Amino acid sequence: MSYQAPLQDMLFNLEHLAQIEQIAALPGFEDAGLDTARAVLEECGRFNHDVVAPLNRVGDTDPSFWKNGAVIATPGFKEAFRQYAEGGWQGLQHPADVGGQGLPKAIGAACVEMLNSANLSFALCPLLSDGAIEALLTAGSEQLKSVYLEKLVGGRWTGTMNLTEPQAGSDLSLVRTKAQPQDDGSYKVSGTKIYITWGEHDMSENIVHLVLARVAGAPEGVKGISLFVCPKFLVEADGSLGARNDVRCISIEHKMGIRASPTAVLQFGDGLAASIADSAGPGAVGYLVGEENRGLEYMFIMMNAARFAVGVQGVAVAERAYQKAAAYARDRVQGRTVDGSLPHSATIVHHPDVRRMLMTMRAFTEGCRAMATAAAAAHDAAHHGTDADSRAQHQAFYEFLVPLVKGFSTEMSLEVTSLGVQVHGGMGFIEETGAAQYYRDARILTIYEGTTAIQANDLVGRKTARDGGRTARAIAARIEQTEAALAARASDAAAEVLRHLHAARLAYLDVVGFVVDNARATPNEVFAGSVPYLMLAGNLVAGWQLARALLVAEDGLARDENTAFVRAKIATARFYAGHILTRAPGLRDSIVDGAASVLAMPLDAF
Amino acid sequence: MSYQAPLQDMLFNLEHLAQIEQIAALPGFEDAGLDTARAVLEECGRFNHDVVAPLNRVGDTDPSFWKNGAVIATPGFKEAFRQYAEGGWQGLQHPADVGGQGLPKAIGAACVEMLNSANLSFALCPLLSDGAIEALLTAGSEQLKSVYLEKLVGGRWTGTMNLTEPQAGSDLSLVRTKAQPQDDGSYKVSGTKIYITWGEHDMSENIVHLVLARVAGAPEGVKGISLFVCPKFLVEADGSLGARNDVRCISIEHKMGIRASPTAVLQFGDGLAASIADSAGPGAVGYLVGEENRGLEYMFIMMNAARFAVGVQGVAVAERAYQKAAAYARDRVQGRTVDGSLPHSATIVHHPDVRRMLMTMRAFTEGCRAMATAAAAAHDAAHHGTDADSRAQHQAFYEFLVPLVKGFSTEMSLEVTSLGVQVHGGMGFIEETGAAQYYRDARILTIYEGTTAIQANDLVGRKTARDGGRTARAIAARIEQTEAALAARASDAAAEVLRHLHAARLAYLDVVGFVVDNARATPNEVFAGSVPYLMLAGNLVAGWQLARALLVAEDGLARDENTAFVRAKIATARFYAGHILTRAPGLRDSIVDGAASVLAMPLDAF
Repeated sequence: MSYQAPLQDMLFNLEHLAQIEQIAALPGFEDAGLDTARAVLEECGRFNHDVVAPLNRVGDTDPSFWKNGAVIATPGFKEAFRQYAEGGWQGLQHPADVGGQGLPKAIGAACVEMLNSANLSFALCPLLSDGAIEALLTAGSEQLKSVYLEKLVGGRWTGTMNLTEPQAGSDLSLVRTKAQPQDDGSYKVSGTKIYITWGEHDMSENIVHLVLARVAGAPEGVKGISLFVCPKFLVEADGSLGARNDVRCISIEHKMGIRASPTAVLQFGDGLAASIADSAGPGAVGYLVGEENRGLEYMFIMMNAARFAVGVQGVAVAERAYQKAAAYARDRVQGRTVDGSLPHSATIVHHPDVRRMLMTMRAFTEGCRAMATAAAAAHDAAHHGTDADSRAQHQAFYEFLVPLVKGFSTEMSLEVTSLGVQVHGGMGFIEETGAAQYYRDARILTIYEGTTAIQANDLVGRKTARDGGRTARAIAARIEQTEAALAARASDAAAEVLRHLHAARLAYLDVVGFVVDNARATPNEVFAGSVPYLMLAGNLVAGWQLARALLVAEDGLARDENTAFVRAKIATARFYAGHILTRAPGLRDSIVDGAASVLAMPLDAF
Repeated sequence: MSYQAPLQDMLFNLEHLAQIEQIAALPGFEDAGLDTARAVLEECGRFNHDVVAPLNRVGDTDPSFWKNGAVIATPGFKEAFRQYAEGGWQGLQHPADVGGQGLPKAIGAACVEMLNSANLSFALCPLLSDGAIEALLTAGSEQLKSVYLEKLVGGRWTGTMNLTEPQAGSDLSLVRTKAQPQDDGSYKVSGTKIYITWGEHDMSENIVHLVLARVAGAPEGVKGISLFVCPKFLVEADGSLGARNDVRCISIEHKMGIRASPTAVLQFGDGLAASIADSAGPGAVGYLVGEENRGLEYMFIMMNAARFAVGVQGVAVAERAYQKAAAYARDRVQGRTVDGSLPHSATIVHHPDVRRMLMTMRAFTEGCRAMATAAAAAHDAAHHGTDADSRAQHQAFYEFLVPLVKGFSTEMSLEVTSLGVQVHGGMGFIEETGAAQYYRDARILTIYEGTTAIQANDLVGRKTARDGGRTARAIAARIEQTEAALAARASDAAAEVLRHLHAARLAYLDVVGFVVDNARATPNEVFAGSVPYLMLAGNLVAGWQLARALLVAEDGLARDENTAFVRAKIATARFYAGHILTRAPGLRDSIVDGAASVLAMPLDAF
């Protein structure tokens, strides 16, 4: 079966959780109401169904490949990317003055999800371009903006993020790539970068590498890292492409999943590019972005956008896995019903455990989609709001949610895609079925753009301890308001959601207190629980958003609106509370009481 | 790094949890004490380290392949299997009178674990032979035993289990393969079987297929299924190999993992085998095992042995993944310590979250190993005990544990191998690293030999509801005794283990009550919680075994014995309680209170 965009759920979230009409009241978003959202999402769904989704399987069986320094993308990808660019999809969230459409992130996130559901490998290319665009918009000189932005936003060129080196992964202080200032104000960049997603390919005319490197004489550690633009082809004054820059793809990785997405090893400055032979020596020509030694700060702009997007990738692959599993379960006949309600063999969707698995997949997916929507709406309000206090509050909320969207949504995608295999039984393990590909593809999501532990460090340090738990507790206070609204309802569903949301919130508050009180004095104990804290907080916030959705759905039901959808939403929210939020108290116990046993094992005993 | 058998942990379990000296006091096990166990395990560890483990990676990159009906195993496998056979490993647990060594299952299970840690794909071949041997021992005629058993036990021939057909997976009542009685007392078997592990290969002289089929005129459903032996080559009266039987491998599957293990589609009776052309028409010559229409009963003998073994596979792949991750974490330098205790970059094993991941991997692995050891010891006592009541109790305990060993140990292996990837960061996603292979290989374990849901159905129906919860509650009573022993200790570790074991036991008892009270009246509600019940019960029993281990380890510490090992065991048991047993109460809530939301979604809304 092919991919069908979950338009109804996305529009429900935009209308009721993101309150898109309020976003459309903000300056600059005047045309971005529900009608616009519907039109954009429908067109996006069609495009991804028709053009991108059909290329997902071939990307796995016929991956992009390397030959003599060039990478040839999976057959069909180049043409699809051209259509993507021509359709204006790359520019959706970017400003109109550089050729974009300037739509809110809340709408953009839904489109990002669709593209990733259709094809995770394909979607990574525009995802990295988005990051490069954000970095140039924020920190690039007018010169750099004028040369690069319109091409990137138009999808004629693509972007990359060059952070990792063999010795510098999670710890970027170890970056060794060098940048030597030149007389003309440019730099010569030399070094080896690894894990560069879409670092080389044939889908665009040029590739704009954003590269972390150290200027000669810069301080050690993260405070001596600068950010450079190193284009694959140098750009002439008239905007046309000039000589090949001295950056070469020396290999690509053989990966467990997202095999169509080339993961490049890039050598900057090996002197092999023909145009370099008679120049002033090897090194890729690079242009400084912003100021020297502020590279990590700018890179975080890209990283935060990319982290949010990777969280949405988790939602996306979970949605695709759910659709496939649900279709199989409705079709596959095997076994009798346990209650004897059918006199013959039944489709497996009748079996309670298959329903439990499908509900788990669905509840995780809808919960994390709702959380991402709420985060995106906060981002929009933070950037376009008219009141400074309100903007700051929205920004704090958004920043608190980024590690949850990234960490929790990707961790849940591992569980959901694994359940997707399980629903298929033996067929799930056979590659031709396709469920295995989602399982393999998803496995990178908790690793790249910062592992879950890195997200959790961010949550503990910058997002919780730094402000003494103020933002964390403000969220709990908002959840308490939702609890009050649930308490006013008479339904069993609302009562069950209330019970578990309440317990999860109390567990969360205990952990927030533990983190705030101990992060400085006993950091090992706090960081021993950092990932469980992230999992608890993500679980709670996603469950809270579904609780909000339940309230809206019950209102709809009372008005006899759209009954099938709202009944399903109520069932899903209730399931989430009864089967996923129930994990929260146990996590609290492990975090608050269990640090000693994490740290008890002597290092040489492992 | 290569695989090192965890001999110390295995021998600790045998001595203290299986109480091997008591097993050695049973008739028939006179030579099977701790010294024998040590000698066997050390030799087994050497063999697997030297011969089998080095073939694991090549099995993934150079899988067994099909050509014109034949399957050529991965290079090196044939020679290794010959050494396995000549070393007598196939006969370890089988009776001496058919050429085996007649050792207890408790010792055998440790050897099975080692073989599977070394190479999951390779180990499947002898695992299936074990099942065939068990079935023939139990139900085969003297004639069949004399023809087949010695060759199987000696590893010259291998065995298979032929259950699944395209329309008959979990539901074997749908088996369509036919068996037509012949005048000479044999049968002609015809039909298609799928997912036949090592169903065709070049590692042995003959392959002994055990095949479920329906005799013409048999009743419908599971009561009309008989079990047949269909050898690849017919066997002459003098034991030599005769004509090729009419069974052909028409393809093998392209799988996500265990790629060296050929998963065959077998066509019985297509008439293409040369020797059939002038015989009485197509059909594979088959010999009835036991009586007609009792095939499923016999197959369950194989299945139960195989289910236990697959559970041990879960432990095995988890152990291998742990060893690899721990070695990487001790070696990889990245980042500073969070407490500033080192003035330079540290190996990642210093980071609290890496330690949490490694401890999770280790605790799951040791807990499930301990559970399997306890189950195997009960099996030994049930089969060799001198007192009928005691035998029956041990048998009931063993049978209760089989779905837990199979279901829980394999589910945990998915989590552990996933953590193994995570510890490696980006390297984990690169195939050459090897962590990804364990993740992919493990993914079949929760599916074959009965999915986790099938194990859970067994746990709910045959193991819990059928005896009104008697066995389930007897286990809780034994756990309560362990709690009493923990309560008598003064250590923090014992106190923490006691607290969580107690809470988990109460949660379990609630669920057992719920299952017993409602299985008949509201089966959908009970089966909606069947897998969570299995996960709770498996978690509890594994945690209980580690609690027993902690008591022994603390005694050892008090005597100043073997301090490094016992300290690690105490840390691991405590971690298990504080971080894994803590999941139990949440599962209770989902099972007892959460059935409504599992079943609320209308089927057409999925």
